Amino acid sequence: MNISITKTTNPKQKPDQNDLGFGQYFTDHMFIMDYTEGKGWHDARIVPYAPLELDPSAMVLHYGQAIFEGLKAYKTKKDDILLFRPEKNMQRVNNSNELLVIPQIDVDDGVQAIKELVKVDADWIPSEPGTSLYIRPFIFATDPFLGVRPSNTYKLVIILSPVGAYYKEGINPVKIYVESNYVRAVRGGLGSAKTVANYAASLKAQVEAKHLGYTQVLWLDGVEKKYIEEVGTMNVFFMIDGEVITPSLEGTILPGITRMSTIELLKKSGYSVTERRITIQELYDAHAAGKLDEAFGTGTAAVISPIGEFNWNGNAIIVNNGKIGEVASKVYDTITGIQSGNLEDTYGWTQKI
Amino acid sequence: MNISITKTTNPKQKPDQNDLGFGQYFTDHMFIMDYTEGKGWHDARIVPYAPLELDPSAMVLHYGQAIFEGLKAYKTKKDDILLFRPEKNMQRVNNSNELLVIPQIDVDDGVQAIKELVKVDADWIPSEPGTSLYIRPFIFATDPFLGVRPSNTYKLVIILSPVGAYYKEGINPVKIYVESNYVRAVRGGLGSAKTVANYAASLKAQVEAKHLGYTQVLWLDGVEKKYIEEVGTMNVFFMIDGEVITPSLEGTILPGITRMSTIELLKKSGYSVTERRITIQELYDAHAAGKLDEAFGTGTAAVISPIGEFNWNGNAIIVNNGKIGEVASKVYDTITGIQSGNLEDTYGWTQKI
Repeated sequence: MNISITKTTNPKQKPDQNDLGFGQYFTDHMFIMDYTEGKGWHDARIVPYAPLELDPSAMVLHYGQAIFEGLKAYKTKKDDILLFRPEKNMQRVNNSNELLVIPQIDVDDGVQAIKELVKVDADWIPSEPGTSLYIRPFIFATDPFLGVRPSNTYKLVIILSPVGAYYKEGINPVKIYVESNYVRAVRGGLGSAKTVANYAASLKAQVEAKHLGYTQVLWLDGVEKKYIEEVGTMNVFFMIDGEVITPSLEGTILPGITRMSTIELLKKSGYSVTERRITIQELYDAHAAGKLDEAFGTGTAAVISPIGEFNWNGNAIIVNNGKIGEVASKVYDTITGIQSGNLEDTYGWTQKI
Repeated sequence: MNISITKTTNPKQKPDQNDLGFGQYFTDHMFIMDYTEGKGWHDARIVPYAPLELDPSAMVLHYGQAIFEGLKAYKTKKDDILLFRPEKNMQRVNNSNELLVIPQIDVDDGVQAIKELVKVDADWIPSEPGTSLYIRPFIFATDPFLGVRPSNTYKLVIILSPVGAYYKEGINPVKIYVESNYVRAVRGGLGSAKTVANYAASLKAQVEAKHLGYTQVLWLDGVEKKYIEEVGTMNVFFMIDGEVITPSLEGTILPGITRMSTIELLKKSGYSVTERRITIQELYDAHAAGKLDEAFGTGTAAVISPIGEFNWNGNAIIVNNGKIGEVASKVYDTITGIQSGNLEDTYGWTQKI
């Protein structure tokens, strides 16, 4: 794929590396590619970061036909730039596109676009421990038309944001509210796509949980409200009686790339890992029997987020005395070590730019 | 509310009134109002219709925090301009906002904004039978931030589109595919909000139904897949054994304003109207027993869309020999008559601009 590059003549001041937060600063450039029916994806270009011009009737604003991805680039101590499994994100774009009736992209072109853009803005990648360059590819419908049907035109845009640690509490365990009223997704819906609808559906529950003092919610299935699905914007793992358990992919949860990597890593390290449906009652019973040793979330933003406590209809489920467990520590140290280049990548997960 | 008005210096050519279609032409002006936390809604203005500038990280593009409305203005034979129950749409904005954690609007301000904008573009209202000016208010999140939380800033925009008849087939009965795989919304989700997520969730089923030769799908509930919810983008009514039945509002379907008007009109006309849960099996059984006399959808775009046939897992449910029924005709004639000013509005539904 040929990517034209127009560099900014007015570079921005870079933010303080110790106060990056998440997703609030953006680099000097962005990647854009257009899709037109009959013509396919075309006009791949890197241009100065600037507002997008959207017709007020652009379909994304009315019917939410849009998907996105999230991944990170890391600067190693040797000043190499590493990406973590970018081809998995680009493959997942196509899974999301399929469910949203958006045309497929070429996975290699997608990875190339990320690499070229990161190269152009390489001096934006922070190097302090825990920091990285968050990469946000997204696709949205642009037809100027008010009627419910798939669009004939789309934009794929990639933007970059230098980020610090996702959770202000750092790697300390979080408190999670088990959500019994609101539902994020249901079988036959969009739950397995990384699409705007799932995040819109999560806002109200998240705000109410925050008001009660919880960091995130644990979603239950939309049909029986008993099977565990995911935590906020992360997949979830449990260590019960010596076995690592994570909800299986039944079409209602996001097939996380950190989830996938965690499973591979733990299996290779000799743990017994099971993907299956698990009820909130089973979690409670395991806790009551003293067999719930760990719980943690996995996601690109946080990598690993240990869970110290669940509130299930007023019943507290305290995990590992509210401290981070051995499995979560091992996964966090290994994945962040490989991502940052501090550990040897024996899995072939990273790609050097 | 004070609305500043900046008129275009470059008016567009108006489209042929006999070839308007739906939602493809837009008038010369639009209404915009901004929301900033702490400041509230502000800067109400009517400006020339033009592209919106959105930061690439604007939250609407990533997390779908957005709602919309749809209503119509009609030109009467006396050249009056009528709106149909605009206060109901603006009240529904606030119901949708509540579920999407978007700040409430002032209902009167919303109605005023619509009226002022329609006045400015009054010469765009078509006058041919069946035509009208479609009004699309929408609100979306604009914070330039990549993290899942409610936005602190929003835009409310209103655009106008002169439209012909929604269905190309006109008032002829349509064929509907009963959807058994995909789910539009589930209890605890966003089904009762007019929000982008619900339309995104409908695309794949709609495309597949179209390929099979059906105009729309009939959605079943997401939990048991047996209760009837709505048809495509419309509410649905049945005439069974002398009784008009429509699914009750259980939080998963849109509380349609044409639905509400249809219920009021039929009750006042002496029909027995029941809002309750109804299964697809009950519909099939009524059909088999020769008691399913009519089926029709209600919505702003189509007003009334009679249904001539359902396909339920390969079983055909033919309604009224595929012809429009007496109840659907009566509702269509009365509502469109009142909307267009051809019938006296004994309900107080219309507002003259």
